[in-house]
Amino acid sequence: MKYDVIIVGAGPAGCSAALTARQRNLKTLVLYNAEGAMEKAHRVDNYPGMPNVSGKEFVKITREQLVEAGAELRKGLVQKIMPVGGSFSCLVENDIYEASSIILACGTARVKTLKNEEELLGQGVSYCATCDGMFYRGKTVIVVGAGGESVEEANYLAELATVKYCPERKHDISGLNDSITVIDDKPLSIEKSAEGMKLVCDKSEHVADGIFVIRPAIAPTQLLPELEVKDGSVYVDKDMATNVKGVFAAGDMVGQPLQVAKATGEGNIAALSAAKYIKQAEND
Amino acid sequence: MKYDVIIVGAGPAGCSAALTARQRNLKTLVLYNAEGAMEKAHRVDNYPGMPNVSGKEFVKITREQLVEAGAELRKGLVQKIMPVGGSFSCLVENDIYEASSIILACGTARVKTLKNEEELLGQGVSYCATCDGMFYRGKTVIVVGAGGESVEEANYLAELATVKYCPERKHDISGLNDSITVIDDKPLSIEKSAEGMKLVCDKSEHVADGIFVIRPAIAPTQLLPELEVKDGSVYVDKDMATNVKGVFAAGDMVGQPLQVAKATGEGNIAALSAAKYIKQAEND
Repeated sequence: MKYDVIIVGAGPAGCSAALTARQRNLKTLVLYNAEGAMEKAHRVDNYPGMPNVSGKEFVKITREQLVEAGAELRKGLVQKIMPVGGSFSCLVENDIYEASSIILACGTARVKTLKNEEELLGQGVSYCATCDGMFYRGKTVIVVGAGGESVEEANYLAELATVKYCPERKHDISGLNDSITVIDDKPLSIEKSAEGMKLVCDKSEHVADGIFVIRPAIAPTQLLPELEVKDGSVYVDKDMATNVKGVFAAGDMVGQPLQVAKATGEGNIAALSAAKYIKQAEND
Repeated sequence: MKYDVIIVGAGPAGCSAALTARQRNLKTLVLYNAEGAMEKAHRVDNYPGMPNVSGKEFVKITREQLVEAGAELRKGLVQKIMPVGGSFSCLVENDIYEASSIILACGTARVKTLKNEEELLGQGVSYCATCDGMFYRGKTVIVVGAGGESVEEANYLAELATVKYCPERKHDISGLNDSITVIDDKPLSIEKSAEGMKLVCDKSEHVADGIFVIRPAIAPTQLLPELEVKDGSVYVDKDMATNVKGVFAAGDMVGQPLQVAKATGEGNIAALSAAKYIKQAEND
């Protein structure tokens, strides 16, 4: 089954894009994962129509609204978007979803990667325990975790391999299996050596067969490396089209001001542009 | 008393601009007149946070919200905006309001003028009975009316002058004073001749000392003739700045798509840009 549009992110921009996509009768899937900036907003006092709404309440109401409008809403980390022919395949944990167009609405991309992490992706570094765990059966792996699902993913890997867990930042690791060793040091970089994959920390170094980096978010350029970024934001034209044909973006990730009304307005425009793109592609 | 910003229009774009202007602590006046496109919208099904809201309800809630936020809201037709030194003077019926910056959010400017109307403005043609009525005491005037306040304005003029009333388009004229003669013909153009001001209609011609054109809206280029218009929309850059320094614009009047979320997003950006402009002007 193929969607007309997959929207990555269910904050203000993503929800708005979904509502307009449905209004244009597009088959719409919305994928979201971690809490975004909106859900952390205590109070928004300048969104028209919802005086002093809390971020959580806004997100709850608009997500109900988009489901009511006929969009599908699914929780899951999008790991990769691949242009395949005229469409796009989205890798979400163990599933692949296909769509004719993509709207990125992932919020501010403040994902800081470890040194060499991106270069070694697929060469001993993985973002997905479910996808790549089996390759490490009976071996040793290090999980660099930053919260979200990283503890669960490490526990899953511990069923297959010997696991060390290195928290990238402070989060609750009380749920880790007893078999997992914790590396209590700040991770800095990854190196590939004759002994295997090496995680270099501030005061120590650790070697394993593979390194999994499990964060609640993935930088847009990791999702889709072709994406043009300008001054730290995804570049879009006035129709919210990115440099990749069929891919649109909206909200905080395309730049200042980081405001709810601005994000919903851009989501609205991105969906209309996606609808237009799909129609043109059908006629080509 | 001088405002930081005067916002012309209280639809989605104007209300959003006012909320953000107040959030930035700007002294804010919102002027509005006739019903806009939003109030005529039966139902809006893609505005995030307000499922299936009616246009009237949206406008009611957001206007209450902006007053609650400390903006002033006043009904009245803005007839002219004049740049005076570093500020702007707005002529609203008989009053002048001053502000450091202007946000235009007047909706689609679908005002069609009569032939020669703009050229003869101030030379026998007037848009304002309250302002110019006294000049015609004891004389004859023609009122070209298009609804809104045009019947009341004609009645006011009938206290001073002999009035003929020519409906520009169909509207309720049952409230006209008995002393007023109705011209039942389509008005086309205005001419200035030795006999006085001539209203040329489809099948007839009528002469008077002055002609008042009373419409519920005024085209943006009549408000502020310096304004650059591109393809029928007010030209703005990505910060919603027009070509006139200190004047910003948002919503339907800056172009497609004519959507609520797009308009509120632009109003939000326009207000932030106005705040930035004011701060810079203060430091200059």
